[in-house]
Amino acid sequence: MSNILLKNATIVTLNDQNDILSRASLAISEDRIVAVGETPADFHADAIIDLSGKIVTPGLYNAHAHAAMVFARGYAEDMPLERWFNEGIWKLESALSREMVRWGVRLAMIEMIRGGVIGFADHYFYMDEVAQAVVESGMRANLAWAVFGHEGGEVGITVPETVDFVKRWQGAANGRLRAMFGPHSPYLCSDEFLARTASVAVREGIGVHIHASETAHQVQTSLAEYDMTPIELLHDRGLFETHTIVAHAIHTTPVDIAILAQSDVNVAHCPSTHLRYAMGVTPVPEMLAEGVNVALGADGAGSSVAYNLWREMRLAVVMQRQARNDPTILGGLAPLHMAARNGARALDFRSSGILAPGYQADLIIIDATQAHYQPLHSVAAALVWNTEPADVQDVMVAGRWLMRDRQLLTLDEAAILEGFSAAMAEMMSKPLGQFKKYDVGGATDQ
Amino acid sequence: MSNILLKNATIVTLNDQNDILSRASLAISEDRIVAVGETPADFHADAIIDLSGKIVTPGLYNAHAHAAMVFARGYAEDMPLERWFNEGIWKLESALSREMVRWGVRLAMIEMIRGGVIGFADHYFYMDEVAQAVVESGMRANLAWAVFGHEGGEVGITVPETVDFVKRWQGAANGRLRAMFGPHSPYLCSDEFLARTASVAVREGIGVHIHASETAHQVQTSLAEYDMTPIELLHDRGLFETHTIVAHAIHTTPVDIAILAQSDVNVAHCPSTHLRYAMGVTPVPEMLAEGVNVALGADGAGSSVAYNLWREMRLAVVMQRQARNDPTILGGLAPLHMAARNGARALDFRSSGILAPGYQADLIIIDATQAHYQPLHSVAAALVWNTEPADVQDVMVAGRWLMRDRQLLTLDEAAILEGFSAAMAEMMSKPLGQFKKYDVGGATDQ
Repeated sequence: MSNILLKNATIVTLNDQNDILSRASLAISEDRIVAVGETPADFHADAIIDLSGKIVTPGLYNAHAHAAMVFARGYAEDMPLERWFNEGIWKLESALSREMVRWGVRLAMIEMIRGGVIGFADHYFYMDEVAQAVVESGMRANLAWAVFGHEGGEVGITVPETVDFVKRWQGAANGRLRAMFGPHSPYLCSDEFLARTASVAVREGIGVHIHASETAHQVQTSLAEYDMTPIELLHDRGLFETHTIVAHAIHTTPVDIAILAQSDVNVAHCPSTHLRYAMGVTPVPEMLAEGVNVALGADGAGSSVAYNLWREMRLAVVMQRQARNDPTILGGLAPLHMAARNGARALDFRSSGILAPGYQADLIIIDATQAHYQPLHSVAAALVWNTEPADVQDVMVAGRWLMRDRQLLTLDEAAILEGFSAAMAEMMSKPLGQFKKYDVGGATDQ
Repeated sequence: MSNILLKNATIVTLNDQNDILSRASLAISEDRIVAVGETPADFHADAIIDLSGKIVTPGLYNAHAHAAMVFARGYAEDMPLERWFNEGIWKLESALSREMVRWGVRLAMIEMIRGGVIGFADHYFYMDEVAQAVVESGMRANLAWAVFGHEGGEVGITVPETVDFVKRWQGAANGRLRAMFGPHSPYLCSDEFLARTASVAVREGIGVHIHASETAHQVQTSLAEYDMTPIELLHDRGLFETHTIVAHAIHTTPVDIAILAQSDVNVAHCPSTHLRYAMGVTPVPEMLAEGVNVALGADGAGSSVAYNLWREMRLAVVMQRQARNDPTILGGLAPLHMAARNGARALDFRSSGILAPGYQADLIIIDATQAHYQPLHSVAAALVWNTEPADVQDVMVAGRWLMRDRQLLTLDEAAILEGFSAAMAEMMSKPLGQFKKYDVGGATDQ
């Protein structure tokens, strides 16, 4: 099917004017949007879909994910970050297998697509498995193979191997797939390793996805060792000279924010993780005011439990309102901008995230005819405050339906549940080893 | 149908031992639970329902509601509390009609039942309409007719009329309906009126549902006028000598908390409203530690936008973790206790809120076979952090199904959507009047 016409929809464009169109049309030809608002006279639709009472928005992006970590969902709850890492997650990860990543990422994709997430920036292991799953699912993704770069060598995968991984997948699946470097963080990578990664990244034109400034302790340690904050260090070592996603960036100074803005760094803000683990309040309003592209991430299910970007939007708002005692902050469509348009930019999909002619046909349809949407005084409030994953009726990426009327069209849900269940049983049957204990810091460290 | 057997379920009892039973049975005879765990040998089931992969919990209670206020959903967003009241809600309410309450509360009931809410403590106007809707819907409710008790007389309804209302409905619908007094708040009721309400309440054995200590400003005003906090004032004037629900109770002192505990007062904590309007952080952990019964409320849709108690649970947790920098607080089933068991107690339904023999068959069934629940390492985490309204498959109150497989059995959804839409159009067609401007205080007052 090449030409699709959506009509009578409420269309939330997320364009610069923040236009919300009523009873409007959206014309799609192949993978692209050709018109928004009025239907062009010369547009011959192969299919016309009436969307009365429905809302169309750009699809959501999960800008910081460890998607396959669904295996850790609810595994080590209600403990301080340090214990959660060392006694929970890293112990469980000692039993990680390629099988688990294969099925884990597919399970995650079911949850993401069903909730209107069309793309994710993944940062994990066995990433060829993830890439293959992205190809099959029809989603977009920007994939980084996580590397713990210690003195004297990398753990798991080397820099040249990472380069091979990136080259293998960059631009695959008609451009739905992108790949980048994934050095874990300044606290789990040596200074030398970070500088080497940066130099290869710049030379080869490869982006970087990294964690930084998750706890005040990490910042103090960095200041003690380098006389620089983690953000200043990454900047100094050249990591920001390429397209970069910094996950978390919670404990950041005004100088850090100026660096992030000037270097066009993308920040992936992960409210569920930050709030559940009491990690602190990212200065998101200051970042946005300075022009930093702040997107939203659902992180790994071990810390966030759910891959629900609607929830991340709401938590991003209430976190700031509580911290600043200001009920006007991040109002209207601001949270959706972060989740959709800023997310597309963070993942480096420059033709996605806005509903406008020439952009990719990447969109989701919300069923606002349901009781809990009535009355529709504010489309923005309906999206940000009423919408849950189950309200997403349809999902389209590059003109292809990934979900229609809540039915997944690219993933075999029953087979994935079965495959995941077997991989999970295998994982839990293994004796759990002990990862090296890392000092990550965190609230109420014990 | 008189005897129902649920089998192979995960049963979250919320009993004093916090028992979670696996592959367990729950036997229901008429409106009561007769066995939990093993099926009694002499139990002859008329219907046997296999719940493999499903979770059964007590139904949720919305302990502070203005249910019919769905008409204000998304109406006046992102503004300080004072402006929201005076320029938004109270202006819109000048066009309130009996018709709107009739349809508004029914629309709210669709949303509540669909999200697993089986009862609500309502505080509003035209309450006979609400009572009639409760009778029809099969829900439980404890209804209070809101009164603004000024010097020289009440607005809208008098104390004797409220007594008549209570007597008309107390214990109706086989005990599903309860009723109480609804003086608005210390700041909108005169001292004399509060004392008179208390004396009638005690004499007639009628409970009280009231707002208090929503803002620091209200506390300051009360201290200036009476040399007592609002909680101390209510206690002093005798309001706590009967069954009482205090909504909000945000700005409370250790002395206030001791009073609330000693007087067995129920606090309705409303996280969505408190966070969206930056009203402050209720000392919930201190209240729970002192033995105060803290339940959760979704308030009116004008301030909360949604009647989603799962969201209220999560927000209750993250609010405290952020404020106290402590990721261990309110873990496990604590949020569900507040939403279900504590809610039942707040509404004075003493045989609800726990799954145990002799208790009412008030329960909900969660479909945990879905992808976003896998793997089920923690039932508590699955309920608190994974569950959204659409995951509730079935709802039972007093042994009667209100929803089966997402189909509402007591409410005509299409007719309600139509009736509400007409009432809403009527409301918006009226010239909006101007309520008396009240000084409610609030964050960033302007």
